[in-house]
Amino acid sequence: MSTIITYGTFDLFHVGHLRLLKRLKDMGDSLIVGVSTDEFNELKGKKTVISFEQRSEIVSSVRYVDMVIAEKCWEQKVDDIKKHNISIFGIGEDWRGKFDFLTEYCDVVYLQRTDGISSSSLKSLMTTFNNTHTDELKKALDIITNIVTKFE
Amino acid sequence: MSTIITYGTFDLFHVGHLRLLKRLKDMGDSLIVGVSTDEFNELKGKKTVISFEQRSEIVSSVRYVDMVIAEKCWEQKVDDIKKHNISIFGIGEDWRGKFDFLTEYCDVVYLQRTDGISSSSLKSLMTTFNNTHTDELKKALDIITNIVTKFE
Repeated sequence: MSTIITYGTFDLFHVGHLRLLKRLKDMGDSLIVGVSTDEFNELKGKKTVISFEQRSEIVSSVRYVDMVIAEKCWEQKVDDIKKHNISIFGIGEDWRGKFDFLTEYCDVVYLQRTDGISSSSLKSLMTTFNNTHTDELKKALDIITNIVTKFE
Repeated sequence: MSTIITYGTFDLFHVGHLRLLKRLKDMGDSLIVGVSTDEFNELKGKKTVISFEQRSEIVSSVRYVDMVIAEKCWEQKVDDIKKHNISIFGIGEDWRGKFDFLTEYCDVVYLQRTDGISSSSLKSLMTTFNNTHTDELKKALDIITNIVTKFE
């Protein structure tokens, strides 16, 4: 019985998250996911659209996920690995090298992210999707700028 | 063996979707979800942030969902109900009354939505979350309006 662990915020759950979780689950028998609490994210200077409770609820509902735990601080990983008898610690390749020190306790795997999908890109996409108001303001700005130029 | 069916777009998957799916699954043994295709949404004048392929992938990964089918038109429901030997057709209460004609083929249940959560409210939330740019434009607009007022 091999158990995999990963950590993340999982804001605005998307297929990038999903495919990462599936690939991790495929590496062993059981997958534990540490979801970053809102307090921990605040510490990291990260603000989410979705609350910890709802992010955890979504991740828990994914069929590849066997257990969700709260990620409250940077330091808990070694304790989690020991406590849950973890075989593999897996995380996105944007963290490459950052968790090599965990090889003392288990295998460490950095996984490729799904091209072009991230919570950040999703937020940008939504802005584009919703920016009718911004477009109107830009137009208004252009008109007023033209008026001002005439007075100069 | 009782099978439930529901239909929806499931854009920007959130706990409102999730809780609806869980309650539907709890009503029987198996849950089939019809996810609206992009073409069908276009017909309905609805534009999604997430593509049909990705929306389907997310819904398929939910542990309460046993099968995902494509919802391509309004008319397919009776055929789906017959084909999959459906016991209950369930959908959000915003559709109340609209699918009563299906009682000829199976039970029809309208379920309460999760308070304050919807894809639309999420889109608005994201706009608020991302509107630093809009705020700047508003400020610029105010400044320029003040300048223009001085010339009048």
